[in-house]
Amino acid sequence: MTTNLQRELETMLPAEDRLLDPADCWAYGADNSRLHALPEAVAFPRDAGAIVELVRLCRSLRTPLVVRGRGTGTTGAVVPVHGGLVLSMERMNRILEVDPANRWLVTEPGATNSEVQQAAGQHGFFWPPDPTSSAFCSIGGNLGCNAAGPRAVKYGTPRDNTLGLAAVAGTGDPLRTGVYTTKGVVGYDLTRLLIGSEGTLAVITEATLRLTPLPETRQLLQAVYRDMRAAAAAVARIMAQPATPCALEFMDAAAIGMIRGYADTALPEQAGAMLMIEVDGARAQIGLAAEAVRRAASGDGCLAIEVAATPEDAERLWRTRKALSPALRNIAPKKINEDVVVPVSRIPDLIDGLQALGRRYGITIVNFGHAGNGNIHVNLLVDPEDPVQMQAAERCLDEVFTLVLALRGTLSGEHGIGLVKREFVRRELDPAALRLMRGLQRVFDPDGIMNPGKSLPDALEAT
Amino acid sequence: MTTNLQRELETMLPAEDRLLDPADCWAYGADNSRLHALPEAVAFPRDAGAIVELVRLCRSLRTPLVVRGRGTGTTGAVVPVHGGLVLSMERMNRILEVDPANRWLVTEPGATNSEVQQAAGQHGFFWPPDPTSSAFCSIGGNLGCNAAGPRAVKYGTPRDNTLGLAAVAGTGDPLRTGVYTTKGVVGYDLTRLLIGSEGTLAVITEATLRLTPLPETRQLLQAVYRDMRAAAAAVARIMAQPATPCALEFMDAAAIGMIRGYADTALPEQAGAMLMIEVDGARAQIGLAAEAVRRAASGDGCLAIEVAATPEDAERLWRTRKALSPALRNIAPKKINEDVVVPVSRIPDLIDGLQALGRRYGITIVNFGHAGNGNIHVNLLVDPEDPVQMQAAERCLDEVFTLVLALRGTLSGEHGIGLVKREFVRRELDPAALRLMRGLQRVFDPDGIMNPGKSLPDALEAT
Repeated sequence: MTTNLQRELETMLPAEDRLLDPADCWAYGADNSRLHALPEAVAFPRDAGAIVELVRLCRSLRTPLVVRGRGTGTTGAVVPVHGGLVLSMERMNRILEVDPANRWLVTEPGATNSEVQQAAGQHGFFWPPDPTSSAFCSIGGNLGCNAAGPRAVKYGTPRDNTLGLAAVAGTGDPLRTGVYTTKGVVGYDLTRLLIGSEGTLAVITEATLRLTPLPETRQLLQAVYRDMRAAAAAVARIMAQPATPCALEFMDAAAIGMIRGYADTALPEQAGAMLMIEVDGARAQIGLAAEAVRRAASGDGCLAIEVAATPEDAERLWRTRKALSPALRNIAPKKINEDVVVPVSRIPDLIDGLQALGRRYGITIVNFGHAGNGNIHVNLLVDPEDPVQMQAAERCLDEVFTLVLALRGTLSGEHGIGLVKREFVRRELDPAALRLMRGLQRVFDPDGIMNPGKSLPDALEAT
Repeated sequence: MTTNLQRELETMLPAEDRLLDPADCWAYGADNSRLHALPEAVAFPRDAGAIVELVRLCRSLRTPLVVRGRGTGTTGAVVPVHGGLVLSMERMNRILEVDPANRWLVTEPGATNSEVQQAAGQHGFFWPPDPTSSAFCSIGGNLGCNAAGPRAVKYGTPRDNTLGLAAVAGTGDPLRTGVYTTKGVVGYDLTRLLIGSEGTLAVITEATLRLTPLPETRQLLQAVYRDMRAAAAAVARIMAQPATPCALEFMDAAAIGMIRGYADTALPEQAGAMLMIEVDGARAQIGLAAEAVRRAASGDGCLAIEVAATPEDAERLWRTRKALSPALRNIAPKKINEDVVVPVSRIPDLIDGLQALGRRYGITIVNFGHAGNGNIHVNLLVDPEDPVQMQAAERCLDEVFTLVLALRGTLSGEHGIGLVKREFVRRELDPAALRLMRGLQRVFDPDGIMNPGKSLPDALEAT
């Protein structure tokens, strides 16, 4: 049975620019959340003009349109739960312009993060957001989720590093937002409104990214603490001095325990928390920056600090951090990975609360993440084959979110909402703010076709 | 004759919280643009609850509501051209919370920029935006205009330095936006939408500002160039290396000529452009940073570079820059001061174009500003008593804006739109983007009471 959408696409697009067979479409129904739904069709637009046509088609048919980068997201944001058309941006992957004198790079959204880094790097620049999947994730996906990664502690998120966008709104209108300069106050800030909106307002067709000069060199420090409270106090001291690190990662006691069992780490026996701190800058200054950070990292509860003297040393220290993922896989078949954020001073309260919840629900919880931003990756280790444990995990997660909000935190720092956190959004957002967001959504997408069922929760009542 | 608004305010507010007499209201009808319009009434709310009542009152009466900081703006953004109520935020000026461990400061909008700097400074922090009128301008005004100042080149604008807001929308609903953390992707970015919206969407009642550690010290350099092209090339070189200056100001040949006639400056005879470059950082590193910048500032067309060796030296060098304002006042009774922005590499084209326009219209044009952002303060020196010259200035300005947009620039970097640039906005903004902005405005302000006649131009047709 052929649907109206499929019939229209057959005449509208050449065969190589679309998929209509369910077997072909299957792979475009999932992301890295393991959720899946089958779209009616997949289109591979090659320019903004094609996207205008496709949005208008979906509007006329009242059919959902789900824009998709490379599917590396973890929240189901690109899973077409209401069917319709998946717009895969993989063929709009050209880098259109690199302007080193003005520090911008114009790219189509399908380029990967690492392709952008390479193009910028040839001129001595980089684009700071890097969600550690840079070889696979697309710029459009980074922008759709405001995905940041470890360097955000010094350089900010995509919202801080994007000058302007071209997009096609859910109305079918192509538009341009923002400027080519680092200042500009003409009209409302649509650029940042679209960034992080998970394809619910518009399809981004081009982005002007703000570039940053590549630092000459980096230096890594590893600091071990008696407990999380001592480590969090060190994070606050590090962030209060001007030599802001370009990465400030942490692991809690449970995470350290995991890697201890898995790899030879040479960490002190009493280690209750660990920080990995990286500074970057000019070669002539890096030693002074590392020393400033070392001084700030020292203090009550600090058991040891090691400054990597050589690249091999740094490699060895990062190996400790990198041992964590295989260690977790080794222990539990599945981890539920959340990316909550709390103010830095509340990290110890969060970790204490998480350990208490873990004990109450009989679930091992392992925490690590971007300490400088208070962005904690909370990992519930579970067996998906065990329905009792999975139910317990669900109740536990509910309490995790309550705890995070009580600590003045937020439910997601970079993974986004998608499907999986959607019903929790109501707990965080002010009802009036949520009503206004729904109103904004209707302005961009009057027929409700843009990635329906994602990001904002459904209205409880007519608004 | 008493209006409905005045009658309602008499019962709603104690006498000391309102002004109804036109003579008393007079002073609240102007800003620093010298434009003026008399409001029906002025209210001095003391909390968000009072603002909710006042917005609802204005909504029920379909009366304009114009929120006002300290009136230091230059665009007429707070001039009540359609009458109604002026909401002066001067009594909501408490700094509510400073949290050094989490690097935030919560303030009411009526606090001045310098009061915030003092409160943050006691803990070793500052708030980077500083539109050089810090003693007089309010935080609410800074946020309303996204006013940035010279430090934006390193530290960004208010949009980059604000975590969250409390506000009352034009619907009368109080709301909270944003987070207390430096990452957060739950819902759409209403914080940045409200910043720079010039009171046309909501009244900001509280702001959570992101603090930055105070640098230990600063160092100033003055670099003189043969012409603007050589200076702009130096700006691009300076911005392409990692030691980003905390100020990167410039003056063109006309500006140098002005101060030469006015003060003893010891600048080389052939000076065609000048850069004032300031670096900040730790005492141990400042010399290296200054040296990196000195190297980048050197090159073809550079006539001289002086590094201030002592605070007295720096004082003397800044005196050159500060001589400009009195010099301009000495020469012309009035200056029309625009704050356009162009990509750094296009600054020379802009300056050349401005000089040609000046010759054609018989108007002296003097340019200086924030070179690192490409943010140029274009000053047309005119005699307001001379109607022929004033007409010529108007036509000239029109061509200035055309030139700026042709160079991929923007009409305003920090002063905003207000009344004075409103009819030019249509030339910059994409029509679809403008339609969407009007739609967003209707969501926040369904009755069109929020600072009507500002920021966005009137619709030409029904939309």
